[in-house]
Amino acid sequence: MSLPTSAYAAHSPTDELAPWSFERREPGAADVLIDIAYCGVCHSDIHFARNEWGFSQYPMVPGHEIVGHVVRVGDGVTRWKAGDRVGVGCFVDSCRTCPSCLEGEEQYCDSGSLFTYNGTDKNGVITYGGYSTQIVVDENYIVRVPESLPLDAAAPLLCAGITTYSPLRHFGAKAGTQLAVLGLGGLGHMAVKFGRAMGCEVTVLSHSPSKEADALKLGAHHFVATNDPEVFNTHASKFEMILNTVSAEHDYNAYVGLLKRDGQMVLLGAPNPSPLSAFPLLVKRRSISGSLIGGIRETQEMLDFCAEHGIVCDIETIAMSEINVAYERMMRSDVRYRFVIDMATLK
Amino acid sequence: MSLPTSAYAAHSPTDELAPWSFERREPGAADVLIDIAYCGVCHSDIHFARNEWGFSQYPMVPGHEIVGHVVRVGDGVTRWKAGDRVGVGCFVDSCRTCPSCLEGEEQYCDSGSLFTYNGTDKNGVITYGGYSTQIVVDENYIVRVPESLPLDAAAPLLCAGITTYSPLRHFGAKAGTQLAVLGLGGLGHMAVKFGRAMGCEVTVLSHSPSKEADALKLGAHHFVATNDPEVFNTHASKFEMILNTVSAEHDYNAYVGLLKRDGQMVLLGAPNPSPLSAFPLLVKRRSISGSLIGGIRETQEMLDFCAEHGIVCDIETIAMSEINVAYERMMRSDVRYRFVIDMATLK
Repeated sequence: MSLPTSAYAAHSPTDELAPWSFERREPGAADVLIDIAYCGVCHSDIHFARNEWGFSQYPMVPGHEIVGHVVRVGDGVTRWKAGDRVGVGCFVDSCRTCPSCLEGEEQYCDSGSLFTYNGTDKNGVITYGGYSTQIVVDENYIVRVPESLPLDAAAPLLCAGITTYSPLRHFGAKAGTQLAVLGLGGLGHMAVKFGRAMGCEVTVLSHSPSKEADALKLGAHHFVATNDPEVFNTHASKFEMILNTVSAEHDYNAYVGLLKRDGQMVLLGAPNPSPLSAFPLLVKRRSISGSLIGGIRETQEMLDFCAEHGIVCDIETIAMSEINVAYERMMRSDVRYRFVIDMATLK
Repeated sequence: MSLPTSAYAAHSPTDELAPWSFERREPGAADVLIDIAYCGVCHSDIHFARNEWGFSQYPMVPGHEIVGHVVRVGDGVTRWKAGDRVGVGCFVDSCRTCPSCLEGEEQYCDSGSLFTYNGTDKNGVITYGGYSTQIVVDENYIVRVPESLPLDAAAPLLCAGITTYSPLRHFGAKAGTQLAVLGLGGLGHMAVKFGRAMGCEVTVLSHSPSKEADALKLGAHHFVATNDPEVFNTHASKFEMILNTVSAEHDYNAYVGLLKRDGQMVLLGAPNPSPLSAFPLLVKRRSISGSLIGGIRETQEMLDFCAEHGIVCDIETIAMSEINVAYERMMRSDVRYRFVIDMATLK
């Protein structure tokens, strides 16, 4: 038995997304069937749909910012019941035995976590994501969406939220930390909200002076327009942490120079390689790190933090049929700050 | 009054070093006059003598791995007395008021520490280094060389020693740490000795298979010849820390791939810029950092650690007049592992 499911899929790197139907597996003993209410649209959905990272499998149903309600659960499931408000993020399984999995850092699983879409599960079945009406997920790879969070604006927390929350926690952001957020898009706007809620002094660094008003409205204390090269002198050695959300190639060294001694720039995007100079790192013992989403435990912690601090994403809700237009607008950075698909429009 | 001092100096970027005389200042109340017994020869001496970093001042007397005996002290000096075995490293003063100075990390002084040579002190006087018979240094920028350490083999500890000891301590090397040392030269051979003494499992990574025997003799547990590209697969995600001592341009990304989750590659040399890829950092939350020598407190700690563990440098002692030949041999990496000038040959 299996579950007929409506979706939007890409059938090749150059096709637009179009309606498609496929079958979800019947929930096993440890599985949960989720009726998808909303799915956020992440920039990596575009990379995957268009095979820009070179390992796409078609047909592809993107979407890894999934929220909805539990419909029914397998016989062995005790933590979830019908009606629960739940979320699913970027992965739906992992090896469960490597050090990273045992420490709750499943995103760094030695065998590679199973992506929510474009992954191949242990039975050889390709995974399909959240641009669909329902999904079946192992109970251990689901998080609870607190009642106080609206489902639509909570959806992007499952990727944009955890991607910014996790490095702030891991690298020690706290009250008084001089935090810079480089780039004010889907990730950046969440970094500002989290940084502010953690008590950091938040500065947004952006090429676009036009983003100043938004930055301050989102909670940033300061805004620095980096189209003026002089700011790299006036703000030299100022920040303890830079969350670098930029996906376009840029000069890492200039931003490293903005870090204090022992400061850390954390890359969250994956731009094309750019030359790294050792000197700016050496002279102040600075670091460049990378960070990738977050584990299940921390994703739950992040959602609970959002409930406690009244944090959600700034979103624009679209119908499923508007996805291709949304992709084009995202390519022009024309969204403040995340598209969310209302999945009722597909049912 | 001032003190006539014999030295070897470079007078231009292209001249060989040659005998020269100049005058040291008469020791002030806080100063210590040191009779120099030995001075190590650091690769940066060559960079400075040849103006390869673009800010050399001539005449230049290189040398920042200085050991000798106290001759006499200023009226206000209480910690040192004639006959003491002392060392002077890469800097001889700093602002003493910035956060880094107050924390004993004077090498990261906000105003820039005063280099032992090629610096300009607060009176506008250019500093001259250890390729000379004597030096006058403020009592706070001197360290004690334990009795058990031979002076000649201790000299390079003042730069090569502290440059490798400090990052091991700062970035948390301890018993059981999987440590890789990239490059087996003056810095690398000290990194092996320190890593071994701290209980790490030490692997030397080197292009030159011919260095295997030396690596193991120095205390490394393993040797990996990186001229075989396959080793980047077989040793992927293996190390918690890589001390990268290489000064020639190389591919950072390949070595980042050898780090475990949360692993750290620390750059100690300053190669030409090389393209950095974000992906290898992101997928395992890895970091690249830089580290610069160490502070006075930590340099003393390092010397005491050396005395406790019987660690000195492997050296080849030369006469002052052999310095130009030594430079040429260093350019060919033909030294195991540090030249030390016997300053008696200049007196």
